[in-house]
Amino acid sequence: MTASIIQNTLFLGSFVHSKSLGELEILHDSAICVDGDGVILAFEQNCDQRTVEETVFPRLGWSVGLVSVRISQPQQFFFPGFVDTHIHASQYPNAGIFGKSTLLDWLNTYTFPMESSLSLASRAKKVYGRVVERTLSHGTTTASYYATISVPSTNLLADLCLEKGQRAFIGRCCMDSMAPDYYRDVSAEASLADTRASISHIANIDPTNALITPIITPRFAPSCSSELMHGLGALQRETNLPVQTHISENQGECALVKSLFPDFNSYTAVYDGHGLLGPKTILAHAIHLSEEELDLIKKRDGKISHCPVSNSSITSGTARVRWMLDKGVEVGLGTDMSGGYSPSVLEAARQAALVSNHVAMGGVDTAKLSVEEVLYLATRGGAKVVGLADRIGGFGVGMEWDAQLIGMGAVDGEDEGDMGPVDLFGWETWDERIAKWVFTGDDRNTLAVWVRGRLVHERKR
Amino acid sequence: MTASIIQNTLFLGSFVHSKSLGELEILHDSAICVDGDGVILAFEQNCDQRTVEETVFPRLGWSVGLVSVRISQPQQFFFPGFVDTHIHASQYPNAGIFGKSTLLDWLNTYTFPMESSLSLASRAKKVYGRVVERTLSHGTTTASYYATISVPSTNLLADLCLEKGQRAFIGRCCMDSMAPDYYRDVSAEASLADTRASISHIANIDPTNALITPIITPRFAPSCSSELMHGLGALQRETNLPVQTHISENQGECALVKSLFPDFNSYTAVYDGHGLLGPKTILAHAIHLSEEELDLIKKRDGKISHCPVSNSSITSGTARVRWMLDKGVEVGLGTDMSGGYSPSVLEAARQAALVSNHVAMGGVDTAKLSVEEVLYLATRGGAKVVGLADRIGGFGVGMEWDAQLIGMGAVDGEDEGDMGPVDLFGWETWDERIAKWVFTGDDRNTLAVWVRGRLVHERKR
Repeated sequence: MTASIIQNTLFLGSFVHSKSLGELEILHDSAICVDGDGVILAFEQNCDQRTVEETVFPRLGWSVGLVSVRISQPQQFFFPGFVDTHIHASQYPNAGIFGKSTLLDWLNTYTFPMESSLSLASRAKKVYGRVVERTLSHGTTTASYYATISVPSTNLLADLCLEKGQRAFIGRCCMDSMAPDYYRDVSAEASLADTRASISHIANIDPTNALITPIITPRFAPSCSSELMHGLGALQRETNLPVQTHISENQGECALVKSLFPDFNSYTAVYDGHGLLGPKTILAHAIHLSEEELDLIKKRDGKISHCPVSNSSITSGTARVRWMLDKGVEVGLGTDMSGGYSPSVLEAARQAALVSNHVAMGGVDTAKLSVEEVLYLATRGGAKVVGLADRIGGFGVGMEWDAQLIGMGAVDGEDEGDMGPVDLFGWETWDERIAKWVFTGDDRNTLAVWVRGRLVHERKR
Repeated sequence: MTASIIQNTLFLGSFVHSKSLGELEILHDSAICVDGDGVILAFEQNCDQRTVEETVFPRLGWSVGLVSVRISQPQQFFFPGFVDTHIHASQYPNAGIFGKSTLLDWLNTYTFPMESSLSLASRAKKVYGRVVERTLSHGTTTASYYATISVPSTNLLADLCLEKGQRAFIGRCCMDSMAPDYYRDVSAEASLADTRASISHIANIDPTNALITPIITPRFAPSCSSELMHGLGALQRETNLPVQTHISENQGECALVKSLFPDFNSYTAVYDGHGLLGPKTILAHAIHLSEEELDLIKKRDGKISHCPVSNSSITSGTARVRWMLDKGVEVGLGTDMSGGYSPSVLEAARQAALVSNHVAMGGVDTAKLSVEEVLYLATRGGAKVVGLADRIGGFGVGMEWDAQLIGMGAVDGEDEGDMGPVDLFGWETWDERIAKWVFTGDDRNTLAVWVRGRLVHERKR
């Protein structure tokens, strides 16, 4: 869809967002004023439209007739857009297709052939266009994407995100080792040059990184030579760009890393030793980490992307999120599609709760994550992981309007087509409504989505 | 919705159903002829409409102009209706609301108050009407329901299933012990009398049990006195009706049963000793069973309802389905809503695969269930569990037409409103399409639903 033209907008009604890990703030009769750049200029509570127009507009220099107004109806609320901290755009056509595989055979059977096929521009355009539309429709306003090794195809993903208005980190996948001949960077040098080419492209199309930011993306240690990782580490220091990779997803993978990098005393130490573990590093999975490894990640202020759907699907393990949070490490959610079958962060949030229950059933009573906590991970937690906590993940003056309007069907309400999967009987508290949304909702409940103030999705009914 | 009038119908196109646990049969250019009673009279392969009309219709005595025809379009297929072997209709308004509770506190906090409130007829009507519509929309053609202790309310559920055309087992919940004063049968005698009253009502509205069958429903051992269970066991022998209950869901519950029934050497032995374990008994959960208990269940030919969504949600444990199947015990799927948050058997199938992966991650490599296997559990397995394997769960001459038409969206296709969550790129094999449906599909992919040949749901778009 073509994004609408931006003007000053007044959002009115109910707003829900995370204040902290365990606390969800639910505000009614409130107002948020967003300017043409998508910046929140005012956040007022206990007010109606007239009050805002009379008391806030003059302060902002706004004229009533020139402001567009969007009001949440009863049973609806504005919620921060979701942050998907780990998603492979290039694997979307395989969503749901993984059989009984585990990581290493899954890569060879399903993943490398699909990614390789996206070197064909027409195919990449179709797949990436659909991924961006789909994730926006699920309320993902920011995504940290893995593309493929192909520079043109990676650049196309950046172009499409910019065009469709999704905030995105775009990673050209670096892999010069242990990958099939048909799908591998020919050398560390070529991999670095291609990475720079993709970074340059993004600098051209979005010079201020208002929406699109390149992200340095060594696929994972087993598919990167030491030379390549040292080069990428140096590139990070040179550019101060973020880094994303995978860590400790699967026990076979961990054993492989140990055999490939015998000079390092842990998987985490491999990245650290190559200058790839720092405050701008997003580590996906982090399932089989030792205490010492998590300590090192904390020391470097590295970030973790928890991917519960993927971990349960390709039998990787159950990540101990409570342990990470207790250690003070920042955690966000990743769909890890198509290791995870769903492009929905809401599904990832739901499964984060279930996976935490599985950790609890394994004996760690305190592991269980609440609805409030998984929603925090999906928004503010994710914003911290991608380094945008001052701009997105919640509502506040000076932050940007990345948001979704959530609505649920009333059993007694008028029938307006498919009202989605959630039934409200009318007697639910707001906490219960939100729990129903998290556990029984889907993209049908995401009625509209904005990024930097721009309307980028509106549900057709 | 009002069910359509039934006439002879020819279904044409693609048909998918389970042949056995591991084998899904996928047939194209096929035809099924269903008579006005919903019985499959012919199942022809490699044919087109004209061939069927010329060669099969004369044999059936059918005239072309008087037969209604339904054709599956490309990307669509007919699939057996789902069998939900364990669902609490009375808990539907709580779907998604369970917090961090586990079984015993969940019952007191969320469940008993909700069930009790459905003694109010207006409330029961609203809730039950919605449950039946929702489950039909998810492709559930047969459901084994728990209602509440209230006879009028239980009878209303039976009436609604009959009216809306869903095949159902209707259980008045028996509980004369360890339940709150406001929600408990006053005595074993009263509980038995009320159970008979509900059985009589169903005998009046559906004398041949064509659609609706009563099911004897001791809630679970902790909420039933020994007197009540002996009475229900005697009632089962007298009536030969099916029985449903819960077993070994939660470790606290198991300990409670042990303390309440010290004369029995296991939870399974408690039911067995009260005449409640036989070939028509559906045991939900069966998570923490011993080898000896499963042997006893097998010996009595008892059936198991596996409820993965519920088990992961209220932290009950991970049922070892492969172990049950290897032992030769029949297993079906239950949503166990609202212990499980979803009324969808497709979601239960998906989570059955994930829970089996969690069992595998716990060390049992062979535990993983495939797409084919979870679809078997959702259809033929469920049909065996509810004792209807000769009539439903698959397609065959002499069986009844309980089916759903499944459709998925083509990325290149024309936009016809919300095409649902599954994107087909066109290059997928049929096995891959079915995997995509199982892992990424929802009720939007269930375009139409029939029970005994009657169209009982058609998706609005």
